[in-house]
Amino acid sequence: MSKTSVTLIVVVLLSFGLLINFSGKASSEEKQVPLAATLENILHEQEKAWNRGDIDAFMIPYWKSESLTFSSGGETQRGWNATRDRYKARYPNEKTMGKLSFSNLEVQSLGKDAALMLGQWQLQRDEPIGGNFSLVWRREGDHWVIMHDHTSARK
Amino acid sequence: MSKTSVTLIVVVLLSFGLLINFSGKASSEEKQVPLAATLENILHEQEKAWNRGDIDAFMIPYWKSESLTFSSGGETQRGWNATRDRYKARYPNEKTMGKLSFSNLEVQSLGKDAALMLGQWQLQRDEPIGGNFSLVWRREGDHWVIMHDHTSARK
Repeated sequence: MSKTSVTLIVVVLLSFGLLINFSGKASSEEKQVPLAATLENILHEQEKAWNRGDIDAFMIPYWKSESLTFSSGGETQRGWNATRDRYKARYPNEKTMGKLSFSNLEVQSLGKDAALMLGQWQLQRDEPIGGNFSLVWRREGDHWVIMHDHTSARK
Repeated sequence: MSKTSVTLIVVVLLSFGLLINFSGKASSEEKQVPLAATLENILHEQEKAWNRGDIDAFMIPYWKSESLTFSSGGETQRGWNATRDRYKARYPNEKTMGKLSFSNLEVQSLGKDAALMLGQWQLQRDEPIGGNFSLVWRREGDHWVIMHDHTSARK
């Protein structure tokens, strides 16, 4: 093989390497930024719903299924209706609902149809409370729903 | 078209339907039973490790990464080393470790490389405690690791 051929082959291989490298980076960025933004926007809508006292709208992102699970304080609630009823019983009025804010949201993809989100929550009110949560999301067609929520309050 | 042809087509279509149906059932059973059994076996090994006072062995299924997250009581611990150190600080001896048992384990697949497991834990000891947990598992090659644990104690 001539020196020129070898050089040509090396240049072609290096170019392929760069292409693969750049395309890998681009595609992972393309996937991750919109997923995190999509899920964070859903949580911001939830905050707004809560802060206007609308628990029904707050419940929209939860999987409307008997298989939804909500764990807190060592117990697991099952089903969308039971979860909504629990929220309504625990937060019967504006005074108990306070002002909700989420912070430090982190999203990790679990493949194309699932994601894990960690975050913190605060309720500003006469007796403020707060803590952290883990949400497991699943893709249902073109939208994402919360299939599992594990929420803890700080002691 | 003759009556015989129509009958033949109907029989062929029905057979295909049955085939698809059976193969669907078979493949979902093939996938789910081993996944649940695999993860449950790992937890049974963890129980055994805990109950012989071996926190290092108990820690084996946790993702050996700085990205491991462990949420409890409103706080999130980060990293495998910090998680092990927290266990060792909270459970310094046999008396505090007690006898661990897991129960009501449930596994849900989140695609081919991730799974969610819910379950309950009990520590039998002078002051018994217990609660529930949510584990997010990810497949690392041919084995599964816990990438996130959210554990709550009953109040």
